[in-house]
Parts: sequence; C-alpha cells; structure tokens
Amino acid sequence: MKRPPEISISRLAIYLRFLEDYIKEKGPQATINSRELAHFLDINHHQIRKDLSYFGKFGERGVGYRPEELKEKINNILGLDRGWNLCLCGMGNLGLALLAYQGFRLMRLDIVAIFDSDKKKIGKVFQGAKVYSPESIALVAKRLNIDIAIIAVPQSAAQKIADKLIHAGIRAILNFAPVKLNVPRNVKLRNVDLATELINLSYFLSSPK
Amino acid sequence: MKRPPEISISRLAIYLRFLEDYIKEKGPQATINSRELAHFLDINHHQIRKDLSYFGKFGERGVGYRPEELKEKINNILGLDRGWNLCLCGMGNLGLALLAYQGFRLMRLDIVAIFDSDKKKIGKVFQGAKVYSPESIALVAKRLNIDIAIIAVPQSAAQKIADKLIHAGIRAILNFAPVKLNVPRNVKLRNVDLATELINLSYFLSSPK
Repeated sequence: MKRPPEISISRLAIYLRFLEDYIKEKGPQATINSRELAHFLDINHHQIRKDLSYFGKFGERGVGYRPEELKEKINNILGLDRGWNLCLCGMGNLGLALLAYQGFRLMRLDIVAIFDSDKKKIGKVFQGAKVYSPESIALVAKRLNIDIAIIAVPQSAAQKIADKLIHAGIRAILNFAPVKLNVPRNVKLRNVDLATELINLSYFLSSPK
Repeated sequence: MKRPPEISISRLAIYLRFLEDYIKEKGPQATINSRELAHFLDINHHQIRKDLSYFGKFGERGVGYRPEELKEKINNILGLDRGWNLCLCGMGNLGLALLAYQGFRLMRLDIVAIFDSDKKKIGKVFQGAKVYSPESIALVAKRLNIDIAIIAVPQSAAQKIADKLIHAGIRAILNFAPVKLNVPRNVKLRNVDLATELINLSYFLSSPK
C-alpha cells in the first residue's frame, strides 16, 4: 500500500464527521456518491476518490457509497474502532475545556487519567478521570494502558512532561504549549498553536489585497 | 511582490517566537546567521532564507541577522506591530483558557469584548473584557473596532454566531467549534480542530510501521 499523505488522513476525519451527521439525518440505508459528498464538503470529487483509493475499493459504480459502511471502514482505517486511552497533562482552564469536549468520547478517545503538579488537585476526579502527580506518569501510564497524551501545561513545564511521557512509553502526543518540543523519531507529535493561527489572521488583515 | 505561501507565514511566526527568546537570552546586540537559526529551529537554512526573501532583503553577508531588527521586521510583515482588537464568542472553559492565554497580549492581540448568550454572564468582566449579548455584536464590534473574532461556542451555535460576526463587518475568524463554517470569500477563516489532530495520532498508532 502506498503511504497516504497526512492531509488525506485529515480529510478522512472530515468525511467521517460528515457521514455521522448524514446518517443521523437520512438514516443508514441512504447512499451517497462522491459528487454529492464533494458538493456537501466543498472538496473536489476526484480528491475524495483519491483519498479513499489509498485504502482499497469503496462504493459501488452507479450506486455510490453506503454511508454506514464507509463510516465503519474509515473508523477502521483511522484506528478509531479499537478506542484509545488518553491522559491529560495540566488541569487548568484548557484542561477543563478539553475534558468537557464531547467529541473525544464519540471517537472512542477516552481521557482516563490527568497529571497535575498542584497538590490540591491530586486525588480529585474530573469527568471520571483521576488526577495524579506527574511523578507517577510511568506507573499510571502502564497500569491504565495510556496510548496518547495531551500536553496542556505552561510553556516552561512542557518539555519536562514530554520527557516523562516518552520515558513511560507513550508514542503519540498532542501539544498545546507554545513551545517546540524535542521528541525522538518514533514518537508522533502534533502541535496546536493558537499563536500561529492568530498570526495568520493578522497577516491576512494587514497584507495588501 | 510574489505572494508568500501560507506555510511561510506560519514559519515567520515560529522565527518570531524564537527571536524573542534569543534576544532575552543573548541580548539585543548579538547576531545570528541563517545556519544557526536553522540549527536551533530544525528547519533547513535555505528554507529560512526563502521564507524571508518574499519580504525583502534581511541580514548582512558575513554577519548574519540582527535579532532585534529581524524581529521588528517580522512583526511589521505580520501586522503585529499595529495591534488588533479581538472578541471572544462563547465564555465556557475554552473561553476562559483563551482569555488566560498570555501569548495573545505579547503579540498585541487584545481581547476587548466577550459575547455569550448566558444572561448570568452578560455584564460581567473577565480579564478586562466585558460580556455582551450576541444580539449586540454589530454595535459593540463597531464601537470597539473589533478586527478578529474567536468562536468558542458549541457546534450548534457556531454558524449563527459567524453570520452575525460577518454581518458586523469582521473579516478574520478563528473557529474552535468542530463544524465547517460557511463564510464569504473576503473573510479569512482558520479552524482549530482538536478531533482531526487526535485522529492523526490514532492513525499513526494503528497504521503498520
């Protein structure tokens, strides 16, 4: 199989979200073809077919895709059908917002532990997840089979937490701290950088049209 | 001037953040060449020179860049030197996290108003910004010269708020709601999609190495 580009993976996530809404609205028996999908999503239909082609054959000529089937296949491709255990590092306002975000559970992404160095928070339970000291990351990560970590600590603490997570065997990190983290090659790091997003808007507003 | 690609703009934001730290550490008189910059940032030095070349001539042959000067030029290119007024739509946990985020003020991005439909919140002040009803977006946006809006409302309310913002003349939106917003061509929309980021990690963990 040819390795699909990361942008195709991101688009699969968009197709998945659309299919969930579509099934809710039209029922599981409806079919949809790539042109309709393209129209709804405002993505070229050749692009949609190309994205899906990395993963095998989908849909039926003259009929289109069966949304339920396509959704299940995409869930499987993306590894969402098996579910993942997440930990949240940093229990500030951003941490609370992430815990409250319903989208995670819909995707079988379950925050099962929280790490925070604030002694007043350690031992408490938020949305079903207990707060532990960062010192026990290795222990807790192993015991609770944690796969993915979310870093939502201040910039100055981010690399130290990342090192602990990596040492504990975690290979996938979503980082919200505005700092470039150093991680080994076998660890997948994604950054959500609010500053960069806003800077893009600033540039748009100030650049000549 | 050749229009720079969006990825170059994003990298300028990274250079800017690095330069701020570098000046703090080494003082404003130090110089840095593109190879050193490349080494620190783990970005190819040809790439750095190319990114900067879209905007004119920088640095001095044999000497390198003067960090303070480069920082000021990048701030000017990105429109950050003039400062922007922001509004925050949605005052939940994510809203609180965004208000507390110090990075905005460093970039002269100032949240000057909050919109929330919760009557208990309207009239209160958070981090210096007053909460208004979404009904008064047009009025407040004009009175406070709001340039950029952040949408942090639930998915179901996002398009309605976006429509109000656009109607009020706001042309730059950062959207955190997990929904594809429809905006006219002259409005710049950036999305921060937590689900897509996590799906990328899920795919990484489950795909064959």
